[in-house]
Amino acid sequence: MGNDNRFRVTYRIFAQDEAEANARANDIALEQTVEIPDDVVPEGFIRDEIVGQVESVQPESNGAFDAVLSYSPDSAGYEVVQLINVIFGNTSIQQNVRVVGFNPGSEIERRFSGARFGIKGLRKLTGRKSGGLISPVIKPQGSSPAQLAQIASRCVAGGADIIKDDHGLANQAIAPFEERLKAVSDAVAEANAKHGHKALYFCNITGHTGNVVEEAFRVKEMGAGGILVMPGLIGFGAMQHLANNAEFGLPIMTHPSFTGPFVLTPTTGISHAIMYGTLQRLAGSDISVFPNVGGRFGFTREECLSIADACRSPNGIGAPMMPSPGGGMSVDRAQEMVSMYGEDVVFLLGGSLLRDREKIGDTIKAMREEIDRL
Amino acid sequence: MGNDNRFRVTYRIFAQDEAEANARANDIALEQTVEIPDDVVPEGFIRDEIVGQVESVQPESNGAFDAVLSYSPDSAGYEVVQLINVIFGNTSIQQNVRVVGFNPGSEIERRFSGARFGIKGLRKLTGRKSGGLISPVIKPQGSSPAQLAQIASRCVAGGADIIKDDHGLANQAIAPFEERLKAVSDAVAEANAKHGHKALYFCNITGHTGNVVEEAFRVKEMGAGGILVMPGLIGFGAMQHLANNAEFGLPIMTHPSFTGPFVLTPTTGISHAIMYGTLQRLAGSDISVFPNVGGRFGFTREECLSIADACRSPNGIGAPMMPSPGGGMSVDRAQEMVSMYGEDVVFLLGGSLLRDREKIGDTIKAMREEIDRL
Repeated sequence: MGNDNRFRVTYRIFAQDEAEANARANDIALEQTVEIPDDVVPEGFIRDEIVGQVESVQPESNGAFDAVLSYSPDSAGYEVVQLINVIFGNTSIQQNVRVVGFNPGSEIERRFSGARFGIKGLRKLTGRKSGGLISPVIKPQGSSPAQLAQIASRCVAGGADIIKDDHGLANQAIAPFEERLKAVSDAVAEANAKHGHKALYFCNITGHTGNVVEEAFRVKEMGAGGILVMPGLIGFGAMQHLANNAEFGLPIMTHPSFTGPFVLTPTTGISHAIMYGTLQRLAGSDISVFPNVGGRFGFTREECLSIADACRSPNGIGAPMMPSPGGGMSVDRAQEMVSMYGEDVVFLLGGSLLRDREKIGDTIKAMREEIDRL
Repeated sequence: MGNDNRFRVTYRIFAQDEAEANARANDIALEQTVEIPDDVVPEGFIRDEIVGQVESVQPESNGAFDAVLSYSPDSAGYEVVQLINVIFGNTSIQQNVRVVGFNPGSEIERRFSGARFGIKGLRKLTGRKSGGLISPVIKPQGSSPAQLAQIASRCVAGGADIIKDDHGLANQAIAPFEERLKAVSDAVAEANAKHGHKALYFCNITGHTGNVVEEAFRVKEMGAGGILVMPGLIGFGAMQHLANNAEFGLPIMTHPSFTGPFVLTPTTGISHAIMYGTLQRLAGSDISVFPNVGGRFGFTREECLSIADACRSPNGIGAPMMPSPGGGMSVDRAQEMVSMYGEDVVFLLGGSLLRDREKIGDTIKAMREEIDRL
């Protein structure tokens, strides 16, 4: 084992004893693949290759057991949706089991190319050769395209690297998708030209037309610099398709909306690192947004660092990508943030930035200077 | 309040006291809409309409508080993805808050038409005028298209109403999407013709081409009777688009893969009824699959019945739809199942059916007779 081409998932099983943990591991092996009782599994290819194989069940601390199961790449095929379905589809509905490890193996590594840009690509696109990237969010929902464009323009003037749509900007009547896309793309292009900057506008797409890929191409046509997607609400598949599509060729940022329950309960779901690092990377995200420690979401410092590690590890799928902690960044806290996350990071600037109104650009400029000084 | 056109969400907040519950309700009102601090909310339309409004906070049993918040339909627009984003996007990432109620109000009812077929439409399509529908699942993953087609054919002969793909059949090399679709559609059509039945084949689509809607139309072209989708993995948006599209015009079945963590912890996520009833119905599902009580997933009888109620309530969005409990149906247990779920239900027959091999049809026939006798 280990030299083959199977991929491996580590499930933390909360069981009374090793016998129960072993039984549950065997159940998972069937549940995640053939979903039939063991006695009706056909012999041959299905029994030998397709059914999950329990490789080890080891006691962990806290009375839990870590079970490593291997699966055939042919169970997943070439699509991230089915890969995630094998990793945790039905087992996600069971108590006392959490996904805490994923090892793609050689074949899944070959089939899934991950981020098109990653850290290096984003630095090239933005011209930000070193230091954390700064990404203000344009909002609030209910603003007109012109109002959002004005905020974007001020942010570019101040030296923002990425202008990100609020994830609540969809296709509402007050700021329809096409109008917002055009107004903000134009404003960012104009401000870039005026100040000699290379800021990228990431436009949020939600699939309101029924076709996420088509909307993403529309974003490109209108001159924006990237897309924002919420895999919890639109899935992971369109992202994989876009990341693999050279003709599209824009970076992708993912937002954690509607994914919280996966990580909140330590005995169910998926670890923070896998949810906001590994899976995003598998699907082709270049920047993964997650709630920073100390904000209103209660993630711990360790959980945030585990996400950043999964995003940037040289051992993950494809190119290392940028973690993007939301909340906590300010001139006062820049030192703390830089010492925590290092330089390959996108610092998201949320709602409190709006307090500075027409001086938003000055705030971003001061933050840039502070980051570069450290 | 109440006579306006806003939609309302009930959040169960687990707090120390009413003051904390009130504070959290106010935070949710901002988080789910403008996502900026209260002091920077622009006055006028945004403050008056867009920001969520806390309508009441009432103590519940177990030290929890139920907070009812109202939101503008213009916060959601016309798309289910953004509607769910408003209901629970970011707040899903917080501890101690669970969505337990949803009242669409007049305007969301107007904008979201729900299921195209629902209970009545499915009875018309299948010719099953009364009694529960029977839906065997073709599997296991790793079988060839011909093997799956043979199982389907036997099930049709026995009188199955719906032949459902296993949710783990995607586009794997052993049974690529197009080949499986053709083989099973043809087998079902042939068996229908031979036996004078009207069974429908629901083909699983995962978006492997990057375009779920296009794959759904391909299913229609090849003569299948419906589609199976996993909203937890491919999102809710494409389903809404398809349910609204008269040219498509096939029924939709939804599968709960990768949604478990939303319901498993009573202090976070979403209630069973809303997750597997209300949201599926909002997005246009005709049949919602969920794990039945007594099986390997631990849902209680009350949870299962709450899902069935949400699917079939005359007060929900659009036409009442079919709940589809997975597991537990057999000739021996038919009486128990019928007395629990009544007749407007799709009984899913899973892996243990395969024990009967070439006699699968006889088993289904016996089950049909037993259901009709009761």
